[in-house]
Amino acid sequence: MKVITTVKEMKQIASDLKKQGKIIGFVPTMGFLHEGHLSLVNKSVSESDITVMSIFVNPLQFGPGEDFERYPRDMKRDQLLAEEAGVDLLFTPEVTELYPVEPSVTVKAVSRTEVLCGASRPGHFDGVVTVLSILFHLVQPDKSYFGQKDAQQAAVVDGLVKSLHFPVEIIPVHTVREEDGLAKSSRNVYLSDEERQEAPVIYQSLKSGADIYISHGIEPAIEHVEKQISAINGEIDYVDILSYPELKVPTHEDRRFIIAAAVKFKQARLIDNVIFSIKEEI
Amino acid sequence: MKVITTVKEMKQIASDLKKQGKIIGFVPTMGFLHEGHLSLVNKSVSESDITVMSIFVNPLQFGPGEDFERYPRDMKRDQLLAEEAGVDLLFTPEVTELYPVEPSVTVKAVSRTEVLCGASRPGHFDGVVTVLSILFHLVQPDKSYFGQKDAQQAAVVDGLVKSLHFPVEIIPVHTVREEDGLAKSSRNVYLSDEERQEAPVIYQSLKSGADIYISHGIEPAIEHVEKQISAINGEIDYVDILSYPELKVPTHEDRRFIIAAAVKFKQARLIDNVIFSIKEEI
Repeated sequence: MKVITTVKEMKQIASDLKKQGKIIGFVPTMGFLHEGHLSLVNKSVSESDITVMSIFVNPLQFGPGEDFERYPRDMKRDQLLAEEAGVDLLFTPEVTELYPVEPSVTVKAVSRTEVLCGASRPGHFDGVVTVLSILFHLVQPDKSYFGQKDAQQAAVVDGLVKSLHFPVEIIPVHTVREEDGLAKSSRNVYLSDEERQEAPVIYQSLKSGADIYISHGIEPAIEHVEKQISAINGEIDYVDILSYPELKVPTHEDRRFIIAAAVKFKQARLIDNVIFSIKEEI
Repeated sequence: MKVITTVKEMKQIASDLKKQGKIIGFVPTMGFLHEGHLSLVNKSVSESDITVMSIFVNPLQFGPGEDFERYPRDMKRDQLLAEEAGVDLLFTPEVTELYPVEPSVTVKAVSRTEVLCGASRPGHFDGVVTVLSILFHLVQPDKSYFGQKDAQQAAVVDGLVKSLHFPVEIIPVHTVREEDGLAKSSRNVYLSDEERQEAPVIYQSLKSGADIYISHGIEPAIEHVEKQISAINGEIDYVDILSYPELKVPTHEDRRFIIAAAVKFKQARLIDNVIFSIKEEI
């Protein structure tokens, strides 16, 4: 595995790979890797000639109350995990490499942002689409991999690529789950034993909520999820059902949806979602 | 010359050319070609393996008062001129090809826009950087050519490419001039005989204004240009001196500048500029 730290070298190598006709798979991350990231790498390795991972904690996507400085970092461990998983090129630029001067042009997410987790993070997705635009330009991937765990991010990135016609295919990757259904997350370790036992209720209630939505509509579905989650030791941040990937209030014309929840436990806030389709008119 | 009208074909051909290691030169235009455009093509042909020209009247960069529908178009003549000049691929997409759905992500020019011609065209450069981002993604040029006649646009595009690290080199091309110094423009035909005789004063006064700026500072320089232009039958829209390409009020640290003017004649508004440098401390 080669570690690249400069924009100049990353550009040169990507350009050479394109000339050789190599298929480049790309997994952008903020580091502190866990199984979710590695499942993205696995998929890329199985489909691409070269897998590039970036590790870049992007200051643009942190709000004033969110602590960019304290975001967990462990580059040594990340390098080992990336190499083991089959990453060929690890791109780890400093902030001043990607943003050498005050930018005169930025990228703005104008929809899909004001709902779910985005509702409480104004500007967050502008930072995400700006850094991804830069990384796509530097890495020139044919495919880029995003976890469905953060389904809103995947939806915003889908919009980025379609709106600006990036020559890259976005590949959504299923959420990795524990045997009892709980979505894997580095935050799960902060759950108490009791919380950990109850947490699979989130996913179970979302799955049954999806079924109820199809048969009975939005209100009974959301009520069901809220009731299930209220019975455990977590505080509901939101439960919502939206069209996917547009993330709008569903209409009769929509056929694909997301049901999503965020739940605050004592030391951890967990998110999960189910994306589902209606095949025929109800 | 091959004419391409779909996004799909343009993407495919660009991707194939990159794999062949071809150097792609790109001249984006809104059509109604004149000598200025053709000088960009000449430069591209001399430096690139393949020259791509786009003709696309971009609705996003027209303001409410500006008439997108009435922008002059002459595709037949443009095709002949492009082919004669040596264009290999002419990309002429419909509006619905580039903007098939309401975009969920756009590109925003956050500086270099509120001065010169941009001052009276809010949102114009957001439209320019958005469509150029799309075109760069579809055409994948190694180099893209922009006339210095529209020096503000060249500055904004320079900022676009640097801020978002597009893998494309922006090549500014000198303004093509008549023998008496008047910048060539399709609008020159709207000048009366008397106006046409006087119009070279704009360029002359900007050149001497640049010298006066270096020796005496900003106020005497602008006064000089205003005085010269006021003596002819044109109404001054603006005269300004700014750092280049940042387009800020010059400070002692700046070394490169633009002096620019816009002048309204009866039937035509002309713009011109001179870009100049201070080599040593005054």
